[in-house]
Amino acid sequence: MKKAGPGAGADVYRIFHPVRVGYVDTDQAQVVHHSKYLHYMEAARVEYLRSRGMVYKAVELDSHEEGGFGLPVVEVTMKYRLPARFDDELRIETWVGKLARATLRFDYVVWRGDERLGHAKITLACVRLPSGRPRRMPAMMAEICDPAETV
Amino acid sequence: MKKAGPGAGADVYRIFHPVRVGYVDTDQAQVVHHSKYLHYMEAARVEYLRSRGMVYKAVELDSHEEGGFGLPVVEVTMKYRLPARFDDELRIETWVGKLARATLRFDYVVWRGDERLGHAKITLACVRLPSGRPRRMPAMMAEICDPAETV
Amino acid sequence: MKKAGPGAGADVYRIFHPVRVGYVDTDQAQVVHHSKYLHYMEAARVEYLRSRGMVYKAVELDSHEEGGFGLPVVEVTMKYRLPARFDDELRIETWVGKLARATLRFDYVVWRGDERLGHAKITLACVRLPSGRPRRMPAMMAEICDPAETV
Amino acid sequence: MKKAGPGAGADVYRIFHPVRVGYVDTDQAQVVHHSKYLHYMEAARVEYLRSRGMVYKAVELDSHEEGGFGLPVVEVTMKYRLPARFDDELRIETWVGKLARATLRFDYVVWRGDERLGHAKITLACVRLPSGRPRRMPAMMAEICDPAETV
Repeated sequence: MKKAGPGAGADVYRIFHPVRVGYVDTDQAQVVHHSKYLHYMEAARVEYLRSRGMVYKAVELDSHEEGGFGLPVVEVTMKYRLPARFDDELRIETWVGKLARATLRFDYVVWRGDERLGHAKITLACVRLPSGRPRRMPAMMAEICDPAETV
Repeated sequence: MKKAGPGAGADVYRIFHPVRVGYVDTDQAQVVHHSKYLHYMEAARVEYLRSRGMVYKAVELDSHEEGGFGLPVVEVTMKYRLPARFDDELRIETWVGKLARATLRFDYVVWRGDERLGHAKITLACVRLPSGRPRRMPAMMAEICDPAETV
Repeated sequence: MKKAGPGAGADVYRIFHPVRVGYVDTDQAQVVHHSKYLHYMEAARVEYLRSRGMVYKAVELDSHEEGGFGLPVVEVTMKYRLPARFDDELRIETWVGKLARATLRFDYVVWRGDERLGHAKITLACVRLPSGRPRRMPAMMAEICDPAETV
Repeated sequence: MKKAGPGAGADVYRIFHPVRVGYVDTDQAQVVHHSKYLHYMEAARVEYLRSRGMVYKAVELDSHEEGGFGLPVVEVTMKYRLPARFDDELRIETWVGKLARATLRFDYVVWRGDERLGHAKITLACVRLPSGRPRRMPAMMAEICDPAETV
């Protein structure tokens, strides 16, 4: 049975990103369309990185000592338990579930108050820009996204 | 190694739903945003059902001898191998991967010519409308979505 | 020449709704897609109403002494002067430009710092729900949306 | 009284771009969200240009004797008369309403059968890429988009 408590272990760095559900996010079933959670999680991911000192915009656009890189999504798994509705105030619990040599997995729980609406795992690959070729995760990322390090 | 051939077995009923990638589907990485494939697959699902004689609109809105029902998405798994780009002509190979008592899983491969860009499994639950309570799949659906039956 | 100052007169009630531009809002021109401003303005409209004591969700879903009603968009005019980009912090200046017997027009200026990126006028009609027939604006709305009343 | 006939004059080149309304295009009012028509019109614009021999993708990405250019949207006016619904088959009537030195205006009527659901005018500016600076419309565009020339 899925536990109702927080998604991540107590010692893992995480954020709770607030989202107000927009009218445009709903569909004719009068619930949030299943694709929109990917937008909420993307925004949460950007804020997670910002909270650890990394501005994702700069990562993509600027050059680095390690060279510019991007983090495209390469895998999504998502489970939906309860629907969210227009004007709901959600919190997207977000943490790093797995950090590997060339990939990074963010894990998520979608909360409305203490109701757990769903959860997801989204894996990003590290690629060189603009070529899109896979590359090793920069040392900076590995440090920033160390899930074990509580901040 | 991922096989390059069709996603479904030769004797499984399937459709190839054509999609022209829109400008709005792209993001600043100049590829299709990962959330948009869920829209393509949703459209493909509607056309799959239509091709087997079921108009999904009517299922939701009208009453049935078995009562009105809906098919909300309850689980998504998706893998992205190669990016699609603006104006690409894609084909969304779509078939029923699994039909159970109260759920239905559609499987997909996204094709651009003979390149396999990604694949997905999307599970729908059968629910009563408007309550949203789980219910047994109507006999009609079970017949229409029998993956073994080639048409 | 368009004035660079606030969009509304000094004595008009207005809000400045903050928006952080999402990655999904961009397109391959690496700017915000022109359709996404309608989402920002919709969210701003909901917050404008909330700030004056009206929860739009309740308006649509609940019954009223004056009966349930909706406010569908019937006309949009929008001008774009400068592009917004990923991760920009925008403010959507929002006020009631015109209140008529059966329609309500919201006016908007999109700001990034003191740069005026664009402006819009969005007219809503008042309709009965669920029929969608036009109706007179409820007295409550006329009071809440009185543009002359500073709060 | 709005005429019920075609939007463009009889001697103006136009296309009727078919659109099947997706589930994701609807909102909780069970009609197409007002922002989605901009997506339909964008797709229609790309097909209009293709029908006259111009592949918009190539315009943006490739170099030309006249240099690469883009056509960002700078102004939208749209009126909504009747709602479209899930699974509707629409036709987006599309023609060039005005061709000026540095701008191009596409005009649209949204049809469902012989019902006129709404209409719009969308103005594009011609800009150099990647700078985004305004430039004169290339001779090629002026020729392709001559509204008077029936094809």
